[in-house]
Amino acid sequence: MKVVTFGEIMIRLSAPDREKLFQSPYLRVIFGGGEANVAISLANFGHDVSFVTALPQNDIGDAVIAELRKMNVDTSKIIRQGKRVGIYFTETGANQRPSKVFYDRAHSSISEAKSGDFKWKEIFNGVDWFHVTGITPAISESAAELTFEALKTAKDMGVKISIDFNYRSKLWKYGKSAVEVMSEIVKYADIGIGNEEDCQKSLGIKANIDVKKGKLDEKIYEELTEKVMEIYPNLEKMAITMRESFSADYNGWSAVLRSKDRFIVGNKYEIKDIVDRIGGGDSFSAGLIHGLDKFRDDEKALNFAIAASCLKHSIPGDFNRVKESEVLNLMEGDASGRVQR
Amino acid sequence: MKVVTFGEIMIRLSAPDREKLFQSPYLRVIFGGGEANVAISLANFGHDVSFVTALPQNDIGDAVIAELRKMNVDTSKIIRQGKRVGIYFTETGANQRPSKVFYDRAHSSISEAKSGDFKWKEIFNGVDWFHVTGITPAISESAAELTFEALKTAKDMGVKISIDFNYRSKLWKYGKSAVEVMSEIVKYADIGIGNEEDCQKSLGIKANIDVKKGKLDEKIYEELTEKVMEIYPNLEKMAITMRESFSADYNGWSAVLRSKDRFIVGNKYEIKDIVDRIGGGDSFSAGLIHGLDKFRDDEKALNFAIAASCLKHSIPGDFNRVKESEVLNLMEGDASGRVQR
Amino acid sequence: MKVVTFGEIMIRLSAPDREKLFQSPYLRVIFGGGEANVAISLANFGHDVSFVTALPQNDIGDAVIAELRKMNVDTSKIIRQGKRVGIYFTETGANQRPSKVFYDRAHSSISEAKSGDFKWKEIFNGVDWFHVTGITPAISESAAELTFEALKTAKDMGVKISIDFNYRSKLWKYGKSAVEVMSEIVKYADIGIGNEEDCQKSLGIKANIDVKKGKLDEKIYEELTEKVMEIYPNLEKMAITMRESFSADYNGWSAVLRSKDRFIVGNKYEIKDIVDRIGGGDSFSAGLIHGLDKFRDDEKALNFAIAASCLKHSIPGDFNRVKESEVLNLMEGDASGRVQR
Amino acid sequence: MKVVTFGEIMIRLSAPDREKLFQSPYLRVIFGGGEANVAISLANFGHDVSFVTALPQNDIGDAVIAELRKMNVDTSKIIRQGKRVGIYFTETGANQRPSKVFYDRAHSSISEAKSGDFKWKEIFNGVDWFHVTGITPAISESAAELTFEALKTAKDMGVKISIDFNYRSKLWKYGKSAVEVMSEIVKYADIGIGNEEDCQKSLGIKANIDVKKGKLDEKIYEELTEKVMEIYPNLEKMAITMRESFSADYNGWSAVLRSKDRFIVGNKYEIKDIVDRIGGGDSFSAGLIHGLDKFRDDEKALNFAIAASCLKHSIPGDFNRVKESEVLNLMEGDASGRVQR
Amino acid sequence: MKVVTFGEIMIRLSAPDREKLFQSPYLRVIFGGGEANVAISLANFGHDVSFVTALPQNDIGDAVIAELRKMNVDTSKIIRQGKRVGIYFTETGANQRPSKVFYDRAHSSISEAKSGDFKWKEIFNGVDWFHVTGITPAISESAAELTFEALKTAKDMGVKISIDFNYRSKLWKYGKSAVEVMSEIVKYADIGIGNEEDCQKSLGIKANIDVKKGKLDEKIYEELTEKVMEIYPNLEKMAITMRESFSADYNGWSAVLRSKDRFIVGNKYEIKDIVDRIGGGDSFSAGLIHGLDKFRDDEKALNFAIAASCLKHSIPGDFNRVKESEVLNLMEGDASGRVQR
Amino acid sequence: MKVVTFGEIMIRLSAPDREKLFQSPYLRVIFGGGEANVAISLANFGHDVSFVTALPQNDIGDAVIAELRKMNVDTSKIIRQGKRVGIYFTETGANQRPSKVFYDRAHSSISEAKSGDFKWKEIFNGVDWFHVTGITPAISESAAELTFEALKTAKDMGVKISIDFNYRSKLWKYGKSAVEVMSEIVKYADIGIGNEEDCQKSLGIKANIDVKKGKLDEKIYEELTEKVMEIYPNLEKMAITMRESFSADYNGWSAVLRSKDRFIVGNKYEIKDIVDRIGGGDSFSAGLIHGLDKFRDDEKALNFAIAASCLKHSIPGDFNRVKESEVLNLMEGDASGRVQR
Repeated sequence: MKVVTFGEIMIRLSAPDREKLFQSPYLRVIFGGGEANVAISLANFGHDVSFVTALPQNDIGDAVIAELRKMNVDTSKIIRQGKRVGIYFTETGANQRPSKVFYDRAHSSISEAKSGDFKWKEIFNGVDWFHVTGITPAISESAAELTFEALKTAKDMGVKISIDFNYRSKLWKYGKSAVEVMSEIVKYADIGIGNEEDCQKSLGIKANIDVKKGKLDEKIYEELTEKVMEIYPNLEKMAITMRESFSADYNGWSAVLRSKDRFIVGNKYEIKDIVDRIGGGDSFSAGLIHGLDKFRDDEKALNFAIAASCLKHSIPGDFNRVKESEVLNLMEGDASGRVQR
Repeated sequence: MKVVTFGEIMIRLSAPDREKLFQSPYLRVIFGGGEANVAISLANFGHDVSFVTALPQNDIGDAVIAELRKMNVDTSKIIRQGKRVGIYFTETGANQRPSKVFYDRAHSSISEAKSGDFKWKEIFNGVDWFHVTGITPAISESAAELTFEALKTAKDMGVKISIDFNYRSKLWKYGKSAVEVMSEIVKYADIGIGNEEDCQKSLGIKANIDVKKGKLDEKIYEELTEKVMEIYPNLEKMAITMRESFSADYNGWSAVLRSKDRFIVGNKYEIKDIVDRIGGGDSFSAGLIHGLDKFRDDEKALNFAIAASCLKHSIPGDFNRVKESEVLNLMEGDASGRVQR
Repeated sequence: MKVVTFGEIMIRLSAPDREKLFQSPYLRVIFGGGEANVAISLANFGHDVSFVTALPQNDIGDAVIAELRKMNVDTSKIIRQGKRVGIYFTETGANQRPSKVFYDRAHSSISEAKSGDFKWKEIFNGVDWFHVTGITPAISESAAELTFEALKTAKDMGVKISIDFNYRSKLWKYGKSAVEVMSEIVKYADIGIGNEEDCQKSLGIKANIDVKKGKLDEKIYEELTEKVMEIYPNLEKMAITMRESFSADYNGWSAVLRSKDRFIVGNKYEIKDIVDRIGGGDSFSAGLIHGLDKFRDDEKALNFAIAASCLKHSIPGDFNRVKESEVLNLMEGDASGRVQR
Repeated sequence: MKVVTFGEIMIRLSAPDREKLFQSPYLRVIFGGGEANVAISLANFGHDVSFVTALPQNDIGDAVIAELRKMNVDTSKIIRQGKRVGIYFTETGANQRPSKVFYDRAHSSISEAKSGDFKWKEIFNGVDWFHVTGITPAISESAAELTFEALKTAKDMGVKISIDFNYRSKLWKYGKSAVEVMSEIVKYADIGIGNEEDCQKSLGIKANIDVKKGKLDEKIYEELTEKVMEIYPNLEKMAITMRESFSADYNGWSAVLRSKDRFIVGNKYEIKDIVDRIGGGDSFSAGLIHGLDKFRDDEKALNFAIAASCLKHSIPGDFNRVKESEVLNLMEGDASGRVQR
Repeated sequence: MKVVTFGEIMIRLSAPDREKLFQSPYLRVIFGGGEANVAISLANFGHDVSFVTALPQNDIGDAVIAELRKMNVDTSKIIRQGKRVGIYFTETGANQRPSKVFYDRAHSSISEAKSGDFKWKEIFNGVDWFHVTGITPAISESAAELTFEALKTAKDMGVKISIDFNYRSKLWKYGKSAVEVMSEIVKYADIGIGNEEDCQKSLGIKANIDVKKGKLDEKIYEELTEKVMEIYPNLEKMAITMRESFSADYNGWSAVLRSKDRFIVGNKYEIKDIVDRIGGGDSFSAGLIHGLDKFRDDEKALNFAIAASCLKHSIPGDFNRVKESEVLNLMEGDASGRVQR
Repeated sequence: MKVVTFGEIMIRLSAPDREKLFQSPYLRVIFGGGEANVAISLANFGHDVSFVTALPQNDIGDAVIAELRKMNVDTSKIIRQGKRVGIYFTETGANQRPSKVFYDRAHSSISEAKSGDFKWKEIFNGVDWFHVTGITPAISESAAELTFEALKTAKDMGVKISIDFNYRSKLWKYGKSAVEVMSEIVKYADIGIGNEEDCQKSLGIKANIDVKKGKLDEKIYEELTEKVMEIYPNLEKMAITMRESFSADYNGWSAVLRSKDRFIVGNKYEIKDIVDRIGGGDSFSAGLIHGLDKFRDDEKALNFAIAASCLKHSIPGDFNRVKESEVLNLMEGDASGRVQR
């Protein structure tokens, strides 16, 4: 498929070796951001993917583009303007100590890009699928406008649209609430993706789920997806990821997928020694998009997405560097982790 | 509170990445030592803490002081004399392979400091709490004398005293036994802290506990604390930590606290992926001191101490770098380790 | 004992920190190879061990020899000829993501060594034990011939012979099948060692075991060892390791040992946070050889071998760097991993 | 002396090993900024120094403060407000390849602090010396106002004032020119410090110097200092550093100092293997302030400043970590670099 | 311009920090190879460059391609076949200690590619310039044949051809001598490039130059270029680089360029603190190709090439990561290395 | 030759990347010590060398022995007793900033070994050469006695003896002066080695040399060697190294050698980018011993020694890891440092 994703890619600075930030004078520097992570994962699965964003015309912007190119993502639609690449700092927790993310992303090029800066008609020419998340509309009013602009054009041009609702409480500071904006955004989606918190905080839909307790109840997810699809009849399918947080490095991981006529609970994996869970949701989105395209079967698509994102938890960095064959291997049942010689 | 701790701070040289010592030619270099660890943790919780020790007048002594200053501990009472900073080497085990500590601490400045070198009256002026451990009296006869000197002055000046019994079998080489010295030392304590081994080896009190088996029996702890408090009626409270050692990186962690009229068993945490357990006991002491001061409630104090020291197990290095809010979060029940964005 | 092992030692290049290969521009460089690993482990247990191989006459060959010397292995029987040291790249998996090994070992000095290059009579002079594996006969036809040459000489000179069947599917490319060659090789063995896959793939013996499922059935191992010893009556003893692969970093680990008149199931360990499992089988072989020599008791020998190889899983690199006392400590029941101060 | 410096401290992210930025995924993370560098160097020389700035109330702000505390600088006058700590990225050149600095400092806490945020009277209470640079007035209009506010109060309270003219072409973006602002700022100075470019670009004074040619002509410096002191009769002394840039890692380093009645050319050092020259000018300012205070002799003060800053070029990071005794040793003529055992 | 280069790209494993190989257990892993280095440098200068080679169909081949893509080089003409990526190990010398390169490149995919494996007509479609070196014909007989095949097709299709004579004494092992093959190869060149040793050893032309003495005599270079161009009248231009090797990290660097009617001696740079000189000649070739295209002026082209390759000596790794603007800055006379803020 | 050296080997902990000690939390850990360095260098040159010392019976002592074994030095004469391995910390200077060494070596096993602990007759059985330095007699009275004991036995058994006078001002703390002891020690030497400071401080012989000035005057060395040999007629030869310290990383390096009838000034090298000069003198001693044995020609021996130690300055760590062929190459005139491919 020809795919476009639109959003922000940032510099990620990570404390090494489970240290607290600045505990020692070294940082790992990688790049990441929801929509870029989806783009890269889809490129790994063999799609022709273009990532659309704005980056400053300097050495740092060049470095971001080189990384995307390395990951086989088309960068020709990126516009070069503005002043900075957003940054986020991370420290990786363990056991009862949570991982932390600190954003320093205000005033990034994409947050200051304006309506008209992107040539959407050109961008969506010949494109099959467009993916966007709830993060971009949260960073600034103009970024929200750009998201609408993109969604409208894509819709008009018959591009399939998936939206990850992705609620970020520390963003949404420009005067509008998440619910206010996202409830309009989601009207463009063919495929909705989120976790239970995203559904509640982005769409204002209540569900009786306490995410801080480990075990999750599938029934509540059945009701929640039903509610979402009633309110947004434009949605063909709605997927919700189910993370059981036993500790910072031990999670249960599964998801559900509802279509008009079917509710499926996917495979579940125990991930007991999480390496890096940032980007986990993005790898699910990419897995689902690829799965739906490849299998034309909801159950397989869902299980592919869960397996793909399960594997992401074992790879450092935001990007899901696994190939389709590796995901298929797990999806078909081999979770033994035996050495491959 | 205004707090003083007295003891030794050493250079800690650690093999990286679960390697055996000298397996590769790199060492992590940090600083640590029981009483310094307590001082730093209390400073993190907002107290005004002074660490008292002796350090040589050279670049290495300067570096130790700079680190203490960084951790917000007052260093103005440290005397500069003697020849060396003690060193300990560590390698971090995993699974069935135990972690190892090798001491190279003989002849350190503090072990050779003499009675009269510290101006105790000045040091305890306006101080609320004094904490000391069973390690300092074990390193040399003069260090034991200094401990008595400090305890007497503190007691005379009405300072509250906590003592961590901390038994170290590789020390106690100067001719007196642990029991001989510690049974006198403990007479100065208002608050006693230890694990079951410390109570037995430092005080000569028998208890029927096999620490090499995982599961622990709370009843034995009830009896043990009772015995200790009978023998040392000066003790207002006696806390004992309960470590269930399932493997080098998987421990159960809890503690009990007895006061004159009450025996409390605290919360228990399963720590399945220990990052660094050195300093775990010290972070418990600091948590207990802070908890008793803050809550004026034994149960809360105990649970704060357990939660604080539980978190320490997930941080590299001796120091417990968590803030009060992080401990409260865990103590109030969120052990989910969910990413904080 | 005076021991000789014969085979290949390679450069091992490992991606750091659970990364995918080439994810970041650093590689750990160590050395390893089945028979060298056995040699080093036996040297650690106090034996007088010589490792026999061919290495090129250049700085890289020199570095390999220096490493063997460091590990206390005699290198005086190594011949210097040929063009390259074989290389293998590894990436360490986690959870459901398997570890991977990529070989770049074709055309190594030992794979191109020819019959007559080694002076076997001199090499086995005064030697008590000879160990070889199914890897060397798999790398090239000439290496298979050298293995036969060595085995014949050793047998003639009354040296005890152990063979690890070690099946490697990516080797065996020179025209003969594993079964064709190994079924002849094994006729020289006094002690056979393998896992269930080695028995099946190297010897063509069927057993009803699915190694991708976690739990293993001891009965099948009882039958399998029986079958092997019927077909190869030269075998005094046959040991099979039992690995339950729950995930890439969580395995159950045990083994069985059959002698003419007895079948023993050894202790079993849960290894929940595997550090590096490459070399695990080799450390079992070394433990068994040492155990049989030391205890003259099959049960103790087997349990020593399992405990030794259990500990190997917690040490980075191919080599089992533990001492006999550390193995005995575990074998005698202390798996608590408590810090040794 | 009791000293105050005021300005910005940033996170410095440096590419390792003379690499281009983002060439490999590691960054060294330290802290630095002109006025903080001066504060730290003066603290190293034994003064009682307070650094005044604004930092956000988060973990990153805490880390900056901990570092200042480690370097023995008082942080009690720092206000906690605003949103971010400024960042600068550096790559270290070599030979003909220049070092590069990329600023990402807009919207930092200090750049958005407002008049009235600092209690200047309290800050300068009992203070002997105040140091500020031309960087702070360049970052924002409000920061320029704060600088004037501070200078006025300090002047009124009889505090000695030194100003490093420090021209930064990439700043000065808020509508006023450097000359417009700095020509007013400098009227508060007792001691002026700069290089020839600073004098020209900050004050608009012409001098016939081509800084891209290696060799420098002292006469021009004699005239330039004369001109500056004519225009700014408030200046008691004017120092200009003389950097001969032969290559990125080979510089000549000296300075001149003019007082009302004397023009002195200081010692000159050839620095052939520069380790890190960022912070070089700041270490000169600190050396001059300390030298003037200690020696009450212009020539010695100047030579102390040159020697101090010469040594800075051999230390990684912004901070001049040398002690007074090390500077005196060089100043007294031992530039041999012989190992000190 | 549309450019094609053809040859080998290898894994380069470098000892860190001027250590001897395997002195410590870490290696830097990058990629490099003469023709790939030229491709990357030309891509940096803005050309549309395709690198043609063979790489195995495995994760290692994928990693090489990702790196080329990152450096903005087209990889669509690379064929995936064969068994291995060649490797070379380097250690970086200093002072009188030479740097060392150890090749482990036999049996690489490109060395075993055969005539017919590449579709040259398609590859050269629309291409302006083809660059090849004397390394590829040296690695195997089939690689030499492929080089001829490529050169013939390019010549037929009117593509401009540059050849770097690049003599490698450790290659040329397949039975033909360098002179035998290269004297035929060079007949296809429009632009010849080499150093004095390449001319002598590849073409068999004598010149009276002792490269181990520092200072070089331009006259000899005048005669040498004359001789080469007499023998190979197909050459429009002949460039020879002049390296004065004062030590491993101190070289003089210049070059000469002869065209039919003019002999030019270029600018000369003293490089006193070489960071990495591997790839220096390749960066000269790329600079010359770009310079000739851009300036249509031999002197400017030559000086651009020298400045570009001068800068390469200050960057770790094979690749010349500088931009055109950086080269122009040096070429126009600013070798001061002053910090660019 | 069969060679024995006797003395101390320590753990060397070095700050990385020209940092000050403890500037960042990493240390390189290697091993080193004068007499061990000589042993290793002689082993590199092909001799059969045994290093004699005392090391504690623990993992740290084991690691030291493994390193010696790796470097091909016999460790069978090392006795295992005492409590610690000595430590020294180093930071590497640059330009005008000197390198620093901090010793923490008191109470090491060798410093507390006693007369009778070594079986000297057995140790010197069949030995051709014995080397010792002025460091061992400086660390403790008992170590001085052991040195005398060793020297007497060696002399009695006809072993050739070389002594490096090596003055260390921070040692000699046990009550005797360097001159008092060393003037007796040197009476056992056949070959004396030192620098001008060693001669003066160890033997009390005056010479008019200011080592802090760069340029050195050979005449003074001629007189100094004459004086030494007059006072110690037992000396067959006396070598003095000549280090011109232009800066911490730029030295001139040469030496002189006097025999009964000849005074030779050796080759001189400019070393402009010193990597690590610790162990430089030891590598000279080893070079001289090897040179005298190999060439039986004073001039060649001296020039070999200078070339060997010149190369040491370009290698990190105490050990001179160069081979004889590399030294010969430099000695024969190739100081060009050209890449060896």
